[in-house]
Amino acid sequence: MHKKEQVTVKTISLKEPILGENIELANRNRQFFESHKICVLNIISSPGSGKTTLLVETLNALKQTLCCAVIEGDQQTDNDARRIAATDVPVVQINTGGTCHLDAGMIGRAMENLPLDGIDVLFIENVGNLICPAEFDLGENAKVVLMSITEGEEKPIKYPLIFHLAKTLVLTKMDLMPHLRFDLDLCIRNFRQINTAAEILTTSAFTHEGLQQWLDWIFRQRKLAAGS
Amino acid sequence: MHKKEQVTVKTISLKEPILGENIELANRNRQFFESHKICVLNIISSPGSGKTTLLVETLNALKQTLCCAVIEGDQQTDNDARRIAATDVPVVQINTGGTCHLDAGMIGRAMENLPLDGIDVLFIENVGNLICPAEFDLGENAKVVLMSITEGEEKPIKYPLIFHLAKTLVLTKMDLMPHLRFDLDLCIRNFRQINTAAEILTTSAFTHEGLQQWLDWIFRQRKLAAGS
Repeated sequence: MHKKEQVTVKTISLKEPILGENIELANRNRQFFESHKICVLNIISSPGSGKTTLLVETLNALKQTLCCAVIEGDQQTDNDARRIAATDVPVVQINTGGTCHLDAGMIGRAMENLPLDGIDVLFIENVGNLICPAEFDLGENAKVVLMSITEGEEKPIKYPLIFHLAKTLVLTKMDLMPHLRFDLDLCIRNFRQINTAAEILTTSAFTHEGLQQWLDWIFRQRKLAAGS
Repeated sequence: MHKKEQVTVKTISLKEPILGENIELANRNRQFFESHKICVLNIISSPGSGKTTLLVETLNALKQTLCCAVIEGDQQTDNDARRIAATDVPVVQINTGGTCHLDAGMIGRAMENLPLDGIDVLFIENVGNLICPAEFDLGENAKVVLMSITEGEEKPIKYPLIFHLAKTLVLTKMDLMPHLRFDLDLCIRNFRQINTAAEILTTSAFTHEGLQQWLDWIFRQRKLAAGS
């Protein structure tokens, strides 16, 4: 009774009109960000990969040097925004309700509620979802994909779009390595099948392993965005 | 410079026609499953929560007693179907491409490629995503939501729809508890805000903690579906 078949399901996309409008709004955001020399990082991962935890550590480390702001995307709750607000960095929470991603229009409206003059780096924490947020340009300088090493080595090949589009892969929860059967080399090989250019950073928000490399990466993106 | 504002973003849903068609197809699947007395479990979680690992252990434990089959949903790759096939249980892989969930039509087509006569339990492993799969009825008897304890306590309130709809919550990777700052009581309290009726199972596919309770739950669902 052993049987395995491939069923390739083709679906007709109803998303083109939505994505087309999104590109226009994303370009509008991008023009604003460029004219204000704001570096915008769109952070995407599965639920529970540690986006907010890394962001809190990042803001605490950066806030004496760079002027930062945060847009938090969640289906429900403002838990994450409250954690960010505790760092004294300005933050706006977007609750998307049933929607599984942030889009450029939501970002445009959130920007009206943020003091963006003088901001060096705007972090956008997307809704926890490895799939849908990848398709929506927000006008950012770079997409950052986070992946906790508890999620297994094959995620880059199972969810290829976001891993392909990311400018850096941040592996999180490295402190758990001794307790997992996680093959880091295999994970990196899988990622390299999808993305040959992105940087790969190994981090732990608890031990601060790799935090300086992550901060250095942000500073480089900031310099690129500022044209300096 | 401390600021926090709520921006509630209202979006016009373009999904109603798609969901309406899905309900029709789901009812067609359900009629088939009912007439064949097949118990169908739709397993939903974030990427990397351990769906396939739990399923492999489950099939190895059940296959002498119950006749099982599996439909595997992934954006890309047939890695999971190959892991299931190694248990000698019949499996069909659906690759959804860019689509972030399984829908009832995909299940209907996959069923044509599965030997469903005499099957007691059909497991459907949905695409790794806590959001979109919740909206799509597949004709199943029950939705099962898995959550790894590495994902943090607040997931039930941040992604309420799937936690609300689930007939059981299976917490996975309990073997990692000594290495995490995870508050199980808080997680359960959060879940109970969203769902007062579902069972809560704590499991580890590695140590087999809670595996028997999970198998017992499956047997009860099977009895309900068989009307015995």
